[in-house]
Amino acid sequence: MKVNVGISNRHVHLCEEDYKILFGDIPLTKRNDLTQPGMYACNETVTIKGNKREYEGVRILGPNRTYTQVEISKTDAYYLGVDPPVRNSGDLLDAALITIIGPKGEITKKACIIATRHIHVDENERIKHNLVGVEKVSVKIDGEKSGIINNVYLKDSDKAYFELHLDTDDANGFLLKQGDEVEIIV
Amino acid sequence: MKVNVGISNRHVHLCEEDYKILFGDIPLTKRNDLTQPGMYACNETVTIKGNKREYEGVRILGPNRTYTQVEISKTDAYYLGVDPPVRNSGDLLDAALITIIGPKGEITKKACIIATRHIHVDENERIKHNLVGVEKVSVKIDGEKSGIINNVYLKDSDKAYFELHLDTDDANGFLLKQGDEVEIIV
Repeated sequence: MKVNVGISNRHVHLCEEDYKILFGDIPLTKRNDLTQPGMYACNETVTIKGNKREYEGVRILGPNRTYTQVEISKTDAYYLGVDPPVRNSGDLLDAALITIIGPKGEITKKACIIATRHIHVDENERIKHNLVGVEKVSVKIDGEKSGIINNVYLKDSDKAYFELHLDTDDANGFLLKQGDEVEIIV
Repeated sequence: MKVNVGISNRHVHLCEEDYKILFGDIPLTKRNDLTQPGMYACNETVTIKGNKREYEGVRILGPNRTYTQVEISKTDAYYLGVDPPVRNSGDLLDAALITIIGPKGEITKKACIIATRHIHVDENERIKHNLVGVEKVSVKIDGEKSGIINNVYLKDSDKAYFELHLDTDDANGFLLKQGDEVEIIV
């Protein structure tokens, strides 16, 4: 069973309240649609700041959510000087403290995680790929730096584009590019 | 069969001729010994520059060699704007063009690679771990982001410290730290 790879660079989701602190009354604007239906990359970016360093120009993904979440790789974490846990999106238990700086203000909160390896699915895709009731899978990756990754969670939404999302550490370690095809092992 | 992990950040090996161009008559000085017998990290650093960006403060590993080689991760490659092949150390076939800048001069040459995943061995270690005649192995990694990596080459030297060397993409993707123990699968 094959799935295409989508690579997530460091990015930020904001709740409405935090968005207003960072951007005031400037509305969030779409730059381009993402593969997941309804999701988009915004023109707006922020600076994220840890204990050691900061990254400028970190993209906001829209639409705004009910929670603020900063997703980075372990490599980013060492650079910034933060120690985020590995979490499914929306699970901010013990998330690392991080400062987010926008043009109108800044916030510091426990919002920083390393996202789990995950595959976006909906009910139809689960049925189509024989994944009903499955919580997580492994994925086999070919190529010069081949291997297998475990603990790849299935992430449900009402309408999903069937795709494996990896952070840049996993993708680059295996020399994967956006759209590459890999194999699911249940 | 267990092996400890050593993590290689981006670094540079220089031949004597290139060293003299970059540093003149300043001698190479040891900062600290590395785990491999006779190898050391130097106080001296250089800037490495690709088509898009550069990294300052990239450490030289001594002693100088018969060839100049810049070892980086795929993440570094995207940042710098270079496209290095995956190679065993010393194999510079189709290595990427890179500029190395020192206090006294600079050189631009095809010297940039992504090092293969490799385990340092010598004859005794091969016998001790039942690896005589083996070219490459796989390695099983436990933890929250667990998995298996293939194409891990055995790298022979006269006297080796038995250790798996990974670049920062592989290490950080699997949340590995220096000295962690992983399992060899022949």
